[in-house]
Formats: sequence, structure tokens, C-alpha cells
Amino acid sequence: MIKKLVIVGVGLIGGSFAMSLRNANMVEKIVGVGRSWENLSSALGTYVIDAAETSVANAVEGADLVVLAVPVGQMSSVMQEIAPVLSSHTVITDVGSTKQDVIELAARFMPGHLDRFVPGHPIAGAERSGVKAATDNLFQGKNVILTPLQDTREDALALVKDLWQKCGGIVHEMPPKVHDQIFAAVSHLPHVLAYALVADIAARPNARELFQFAAGGFRDFTRIASSSPEMWRDICLANREAMVSELDSYLAQVHHMRDAIAKGEGAELEKIFDAARNARNAWISGGNK
Amino acid sequence: MIKKLVIVGVGLIGGSFAMSLRNANMVEKIVGVGRSWENLSSALGTYVIDAAETSVANAVEGADLVVLAVPVGQMSSVMQEIAPVLSSHTVITDVGSTKQDVIELAARFMPGHLDRFVPGHPIAGAERSGVKAATDNLFQGKNVILTPLQDTREDALALVKDLWQKCGGIVHEMPPKVHDQIFAAVSHLPHVLAYALVADIAARPNARELFQFAAGGFRDFTRIASSSPEMWRDICLANREAMVSELDSYLAQVHHMRDAIAKGEGAELEKIFDAARNARNAWISGGNK
Repeated sequence: MIKKLVIVGVGLIGGSFAMSLRNANMVEKIVGVGRSWENLSSALGTYVIDAAETSVANAVEGADLVVLAVPVGQMSSVMQEIAPVLSSHTVITDVGSTKQDVIELAARFMPGHLDRFVPGHPIAGAERSGVKAATDNLFQGKNVILTPLQDTREDALALVKDLWQKCGGIVHEMPPKVHDQIFAAVSHLPHVLAYALVADIAARPNARELFQFAAGGFRDFTRIASSSPEMWRDICLANREAMVSELDSYLAQVHHMRDAIAKGEGAELEKIFDAARNARNAWISGGNK
Repeated sequence: MIKKLVIVGVGLIGGSFAMSLRNANMVEKIVGVGRSWENLSSALGTYVIDAAETSVANAVEGADLVVLAVPVGQMSSVMQEIAPVLSSHTVITDVGSTKQDVIELAARFMPGHLDRFVPGHPIAGAERSGVKAATDNLFQGKNVILTPLQDTREDALALVKDLWQKCGGIVHEMPPKVHDQIFAAVSHLPHVLAYALVADIAARPNARELFQFAAGGFRDFTRIASSSPEMWRDICLANREAMVSELDSYLAQVHHMRDAIAKGEGAELEKIFDAARNARNAWISGGNK
């Protein structure tokens, strides 16, 4: 049982984590911290949190667990504010989409607390946002990645792991670099590619006509291009090295297919399309996507 | 009222066209032509068609309208079979995803019938296939493009236009080259890009791990990579010139974003992401997508 849980950033992820733990009877008191009173009062009104604070330093006093659920771009200022006031028993975790950069910030801004820092990343719900979208089943059956440091204490890791499992999450542990490479390929890259297509088309003189005839395939392909530009800018910069490597690999693949089309190499094209369809269908049939 | 309608290729599109016209009381008799008895007997059993033929030359005798709803790759052989036996009053239309190539084939293989040929392309339902997926409302509110030739007679164009409108379609006329350029950008390009991503990832040594952590964004971005490899190979080759131009434009955009990420140019990235999100959100809010 957690006596005091502090959620810094009560949005979709932070709010859903709070609701899921309350639902599982894992927590006594939940304090929400945010920059906007409007969002915090909405979280209070729906009993997602029991108390609201705008000062993160005041909020974390005596906390058993602090969840950093702010955008990666705000992480360093939050860490600097909490580092001087964290209790020696407080466990800290985060939900950032990139892990190496958050760990670097933690090493720099809260070096005295690394033994109780458990970096994390739940794979859920990126397209909606705000506490109003939060639910107590958001993480049910979803993967949650933890990337503990060498310094991270076993009991801190065990606590965070247990809480995510109580939220219905399937917890995996891996090194932060491996995490960042995997998500560069399967998440960050597709976001950049979807933004690129819409931006390319929107800049054309006949953009209006093109959008008029875009249909269901275009809609689904570009759905993630409606994501937060600020958040994805931060993720691309935070995961720069893996992103450049993924983009180079993808560009080489598309160049190859472009040349096959230009040369009329139907068999080569069909081979690639077929490999892709088979791989995707095997993936889809393998589970709840 | 159409006395005899012949659907060559009774799949999702051909079957839905037949069902919609019957529903609108626009047709007396519908003859389906196909290579597979299994599919034809399914279409007979569900009253999508009234009669089935495997010989297209026999089927088209005395027809008022012949709809070519076969893959682009089979178009030339069908045209060669019907050209010698078409009645002088029979109107011919097609539903192919590319138009310039179909028109070239028609000019070559049925030159005596171009005055009654109305090239068409309904924008609907590419991800499912087969007559079992056909419905009488597939085209409701959907765009249908007609690309008449200089030779096409007004009454033939008016007939095909009227029938699509009776199916609920919103009919647009445009030159075939404009059609092919538009759909290269908003349909054919995204298909190639989705195939490219899945093929690139499937070929990695750690493909299994990558797919394990792929989630909703990846699923939607790659949905169209589950489409028919044969059909999309044909489309890419048929629309080669426009495709290469689109791919070059897209590759330049992605190269630019890759360099912005490599150099840490956050403001430039955010500007592109923002333009894309705004354009997409305006498009989505503009209608029934």
C-alpha cells in the first residue's frame, strides 16, 4: 500500500495511472501537480486525485512514490525542483517516451536519488491527451518498459514493477539504449514519416484538391500526424542518434523501391510488398493489436 | 433502366455496384463473369447476380453496360476477348485505380468502342476484398472519378454518371493524367511507404522484438501494408511516372527532416510537425473521413 503518491503532470498517462492504482486499492492519498488549475480541478472533480498542488517541491514532501508524467521537455526543471526536498525513502519513476535522455537528466539534476529512480515507459494511448481521456483500464494488457540503472535498488524496482502489474500492464525490463532503439523503429520513425507525408502534400499548390480525394488509407496512415508537435519534436531530439539511423535505413529502403518502380521491376516490388504483408498479418494475428 | 448489366470481376467493387443498382431498381438482369466458380456461386447464392458466366465473350452479348472490375493486370486480356463481340450500343466502364494505362489498353485492344468507353474509379473499400464483403451502401457519400476521353459520347458518360449517383456516389470528372497524379500522392504513395516500413523492420535480426513492442500507431500507419501485393505492384507500374515524381518529392522531405534531427534543429522540426497536424486536422474536421 502506497500512503502518498504524487503525480507530476495529471494528463492521460498520469491520470490513468492514478485511477488504476486507486481502483486496485494500492494507494491511500494521491496528490496531483500541474501548471494549469483548470486541469487540476478537473482531476479533483472526478476524484482522480485527492489534492492538487502547483508547487512540485511542496507536493513531494514525504511521498512514497513520485511519478514524473510531464513532457520530456519539462523533465529537467521538475527534477531540479524536487531534488533538494525528496525524502530518502521516496521512489521516483517516469513515463517518458525516451529513456537515455531522461536518465542523463536524472544523473545531472538528482544525482543523490538515482538508487531510487526507476525509469519507465508505458506503451499506451499517445493519440488522446488530458485527464479527461484518462481511464482505469488504459494499461490493461499493455506493455510497460522499465529500464533500471545499475544503481537502482531492487526494492524500488520491485515496487514500480508491482504497481504497473496492478494496473494490468505487462512489464518488461531492458537497457535504456535498447529501449530507445526499439521505439525509434516502431514508434518515433512512423510519426516522422506521417508528418512528412501530410506536410509535403499540404505545401502543394493543389493541396485542397489532393485532400479532397484522400480517403481511408490516407486517414489511417496519417492518424499519428495529428499528435502533439511539441512532444514529438522533443522525442526526435532526445532520441536523435537512433532516429537518424532509422531514417537512413528507411530512406535506403524507399530509394530501392523508387528505383524498382522507375525500372519497371515488378517482381522485385511484389517480393517486398509480399514480405511486408506477410509480416504484418503474422503480427496482427499474433495478438490484440 | 438497364436491361442487361455485365459485371466482369464480381469482387468487392463489382459486387457492391451490382447490389447498389439492384437496390435502386436500376437494372433488370445482372450477369457476373469470373475465373472462379466458387466466387460466382457465392454471388449467385446471395442474389448479387442473376446469372454467372466464365466466358466473358458469351456474357457481354447484347449487354447495355459492361463493367470491367478486374485487376489492372487482367484488363488487356478481357478487352481483347470482348472487343469482337460487343454490341454497337453497349457502354463500357471500368473501376481501375489508374486511368491513363487503362485508356491506353482500350485504345489498343478495343479501338472500335472508345466512343462508348467511360473510364472510372470509385474511391472506396480497398482493404477488404471478395464478393462476401460487398454491400449495397459501399459507395454512399464516396467520391467516384470519371475520366472521359475526347471520343466518349455524351449519352454514355451521362449513363455511367447517373448510375454512380444512384449508388450514392459523388461523381467528379477530370482528365486521366490529373487523376493519376492525385492518386499517386494520396493513395499509391502511402501504400508504398507503409510496405517499405514493414519490409524494412521485418528484415532486421531483431524483427520479433520490434514487432512485440509495436502498438496502435504502427498498426494504423501500416494497415494498408496488408493490401494485395499483386494489385499494388500493378498500380505502381501502371502509374510509374507519377509515382517516381511523388517518391522523389517525399524522399526530399524526409531527407530534410532527417538532417534537421541530426543537427538538433528543434524549431524547424516543430514547424513541419505543426503544419502537418494543422492540415490534417482541418481535413478531418471538413467531412466524413
